[in-house]
Amino acid sequence: MAVYTDITDEELAALLADFDLGAPLAFKGIAEGVSNSNFLLETERGRYILTVYESRTNPDDLPFFLELMRWLARHGYPSAEPMADRQGRLIKTAGGKPCAITGFLNGLSVRRPTVAHCREAGAGLAALHLAGEGFPMRRENDLGQAAWAGMFAGLEDAADGLKPGLAKTIGADLAMLAERWPEGLPTGVCHADFFPDNVFFTGGKFSGAIDFYFACTDAFAYDVAVALNAWCFEADGSFNITAARALLAGYEGLRALSDAERAALPLLAHGAAMRFFLTRLYDWGATPAGALVKPKDPLEYERKLAVHRASPDLLVCGSQT
Amino acid sequence: MAVYTDITDEELAALLADFDLGAPLAFKGIAEGVSNSNFLLETERGRYILTVYESRTNPDDLPFFLELMRWLARHGYPSAEPMADRQGRLIKTAGGKPCAITGFLNGLSVRRPTVAHCREAGAGLAALHLAGEGFPMRRENDLGQAAWAGMFAGLEDAADGLKPGLAKTIGADLAMLAERWPEGLPTGVCHADFFPDNVFFTGGKFSGAIDFYFACTDAFAYDVAVALNAWCFEADGSFNITAARALLAGYEGLRALSDAERAALPLLAHGAAMRFFLTRLYDWGATPAGALVKPKDPLEYERKLAVHRASPDLLVCGSQT
Repeated sequence: MAVYTDITDEELAALLADFDLGAPLAFKGIAEGVSNSNFLLETERGRYILTVYESRTNPDDLPFFLELMRWLARHGYPSAEPMADRQGRLIKTAGGKPCAITGFLNGLSVRRPTVAHCREAGAGLAALHLAGEGFPMRRENDLGQAAWAGMFAGLEDAADGLKPGLAKTIGADLAMLAERWPEGLPTGVCHADFFPDNVFFTGGKFSGAIDFYFACTDAFAYDVAVALNAWCFEADGSFNITAARALLAGYEGLRALSDAERAALPLLAHGAAMRFFLTRLYDWGATPAGALVKPKDPLEYERKLAVHRASPDLLVCGSQT
Repeated sequence: MAVYTDITDEELAALLADFDLGAPLAFKGIAEGVSNSNFLLETERGRYILTVYESRTNPDDLPFFLELMRWLARHGYPSAEPMADRQGRLIKTAGGKPCAITGFLNGLSVRRPTVAHCREAGAGLAALHLAGEGFPMRRENDLGQAAWAGMFAGLEDAADGLKPGLAKTIGADLAMLAERWPEGLPTGVCHADFFPDNVFFTGGKFSGAIDFYFACTDAFAYDVAVALNAWCFEADGSFNITAARALLAGYEGLRALSDAERAALPLLAHGAAMRFFLTRLYDWGATPAGALVKPKDPLEYERKLAVHRASPDLLVCGSQT
């Protein structure tokens, strides 16, 4: 849950004065997204989400994120479309911070995805990869493999504090991933945070994706690997191979994986687990005790790392379902 | 902001199965109310708020609160109407806690009320007092004057920790309030928490009130006194007599105060400041450091207490505007 910035009625009125959205009818902070503040905004014209970008989102990246969301919405992908003000600007300011107004996307996220949800999510991710084709902007994945060693530097003690000896294990993982990280895989627009929180369903069917604030240009198969980690582990830490096959089958119903992509998946999933372990490890130490947000447990991803480390052939499973 | 309880998609589906509200289309935790968890719920039939009652709300009081909200909505007062399930029940269970689904009320609360807002708020409070006439249930104000000495017992050190000598001053206030507390004033349904957070405006006009979870049977003038404290102090702690006159004028446009009510207002406002000081003092000490909610500063109400203590004639001001 996240509402870090308070927007007063005066600030809202000043913001809306630049748009043709009519007068506000309702305005409520909502618990959606973890990095930014989000508000439900109903006006005479319809329903919207106001997102206020907090320090984690680099303002320089906002044009990429918002133009991508506009591109996707206009290319048939169910994502919220940013609203332009009368001068055509998507990025505005409220409460002294950058913000944007996007359309309201119906749908519910699921807490405990079923195998059927995983199949739908896979199809939703493939549809995103296809809809992003031709998007003219690029953004490097600043949380990608090249960044991980730098992200871990200084967190060795935090890792050992979680679990004695963990820093050494992570160091070995990082060296292995750096040595074996695949190159030349098909790349394009990736969501890079395609977690159940960010995926909506209506009547059990995929109905949209939100929170494109980690989106970047990266290997499609890496995006699939992020999703496999996020959707296919059970609460007890075990990997649900049936769910993984369903996710891959849903994906491949729209976009077939090449042999190279398929062969790379186990390593990509190991790396994707590393990326989320590292950011959670950082947040775990950096979140002050009095903060209004509870950091996510890095041990969840430490366990996923351990699964991938122990079973490098885990995902050599095909999608035969 | 408050979302204490997580409601899973399965729990939501199980809850909605008892209602004729159609399938869910959207479900988001919202930052509204401080005692309970609230969710925006959109279904095929319309928009609703799901409130999950947390420990601060006594389940035994829920029939009073929910029947009152239904009564008010059906007697022309703009408040959210609770939805009955197919068996006519208003109080349900979700996430192991009592909950209720109410209609969605349009409107925006204001952060810094203007004098015009105060006038509208006064009218909205009088309309509530009139709409509650004939409501057949009663609920004692368990945070009323009779309770204050008991609420302060054990918090003396906390008070002195806020400000040396404060416990003695509060003790003297309590003795004075107990001795002089008025009896025999007109009573009826009171909101008892008519703060700007809980009052909605549309286009600058009062459009509804929410959060009836402190509502009780008490003196109408006490409810007015709570509102005067909540709406008419400036951020710097000064009392805005123009705002107070506007609130009273708005109120008296619908319901005239008797001479006895008017004469009692200064003392009632002193007492109303005591009530919020005491609960905030309690919460200040009781909120664990890691909680996701920031307790409200008791010193805000300590300053209001000081204003009333120093100027017992502050509110002998009429409503001549």
